[in-house]
Amino acid sequence: MNPGVGTLYGIGMGPGDPELITVKGARILRSARTVAHFRKRGSPGHAWTIAKPYLTASVQELALEYPVTTEIAFTEDGYIGPISRFYAAASDSLRLLLEESQDVVLLCEGDPFFYGSFLHMYERLRGHVPIVAVPGVTGMSGCWTAAGLPIALGDDVLTVLPGTLGPDALAAKLRAANAAVIMKVGTNLAKIREALEISGRLHEAILVERGTMAGERIAPLSEASMAAPYFSIVLVPGCKGRRIL
Amino acid sequence: MNPGVGTLYGIGMGPGDPELITVKGARILRSARTVAHFRKRGSPGHAWTIAKPYLTASVQELALEYPVTTEIAFTEDGYIGPISRFYAAASDSLRLLLEESQDVVLLCEGDPFFYGSFLHMYERLRGHVPIVAVPGVTGMSGCWTAAGLPIALGDDVLTVLPGTLGPDALAAKLRAANAAVIMKVGTNLAKIREALEISGRLHEAILVERGTMAGERIAPLSEASMAAPYFSIVLVPGCKGRRIL
Repeated sequence: MNPGVGTLYGIGMGPGDPELITVKGARILRSARTVAHFRKRGSPGHAWTIAKPYLTASVQELALEYPVTTEIAFTEDGYIGPISRFYAAASDSLRLLLEESQDVVLLCEGDPFFYGSFLHMYERLRGHVPIVAVPGVTGMSGCWTAAGLPIALGDDVLTVLPGTLGPDALAAKLRAANAAVIMKVGTNLAKIREALEISGRLHEAILVERGTMAGERIAPLSEASMAAPYFSIVLVPGCKGRRIL
Repeated sequence: MNPGVGTLYGIGMGPGDPELITVKGARILRSARTVAHFRKRGSPGHAWTIAKPYLTASVQELALEYPVTTEIAFTEDGYIGPISRFYAAASDSLRLLLEESQDVVLLCEGDPFFYGSFLHMYERLRGHVPIVAVPGVTGMSGCWTAAGLPIALGDDVLTVLPGTLGPDALAAKLRAANAAVIMKVGTNLAKIREALEISGRLHEAILVERGTMAGERIAPLSEASMAAPYFSIVLVPGCKGRRIL
């Protein structure tokens, strides 16, 4: 590792409410000079919106714009090529800044090591530049807290499922699961609902849209419409059937 | 609900490093007058130690001491009676303070709604007093970040297992799992190791002791000794075998 190289900070931004980032994350943001973040094209960026209250006016912004959605399965045609080239270019631009001795803060929705785009940077840059990751409150924690819904207790097993899985795989996992969380809902909602129905667990499922954020909406999934925003999570609580001691 | 009643705040204290509590949690702690927490007998209390830097000198402490360990299964003989009486008495003492119009902050290790003792208070007091929960970084997030170990990516399924389960149940779940986390390790370590061996996943498992805290230790489980402190978590990462895009 080049001794003059800057440090990459991957900061977990939490579930959405800016007050739910960590004290450590806030400290690093306040002194950040260069801040990178991933965003959808045409949007200011969700992580950026969370970070804004902590950033100085003179901060340098590096917006890394996804060429395609991240809501589809890894195996889908036309996905792997563009997204892989995008991640390679993104890590190159981070590395360029870092090799100019600049520290760079990369904002990560939720927790950096839990289904995050940060991981694609981490795997490319580890060993080449110093990397410090700061964990964050996950989107799912934000959602079950917003819903006032204990998710797991005692001997409960919790299964976290990406909504990008196929309906049969989802249904099989849900049937075997005790407590479950389904992430990456968005455009996968109709399929997820079908899988919950097949597995006999639809009546237990709660849909949380924009948990801890403006426009938060919490409802039984069976009563929800067939569309959900990207920041939606489905919760199937585990301890409902348990005796609280 | 009595209008003069105080509010119960359940604050997620995160994985151990005091800087990993949320900005919201820190704000509530700084103005707290009465702070309750669960602890083992003969210990100052883990959550209390995390909270200490944020508390005023005049804060009132209510220490709720477990009569038995929380590392054993719910079904074990001699466990349910004492722990149930303890939780009933603890919620009564919180309710007494709340009904005297005092706000009470209850410290919760990790995240309040994720395997927390807080849930036993929540289920007893909801509907009777106003309750505000603040999510926290889970112990497992703290551990996988400390280990620099991406836990799940893309279509990975993550299974969270309490180490209190029997060895056969654990082994079956581990065999079916993609990524896995085993909580409540402590005295269950030898059994967990056996289950990992039976399921053929021992070589993938990492033991994190006291993640994000003084005395942190990270090692392959196959090289670890047969004893682990209470604050230990076993990680079986999911994305190791995956292609990073």
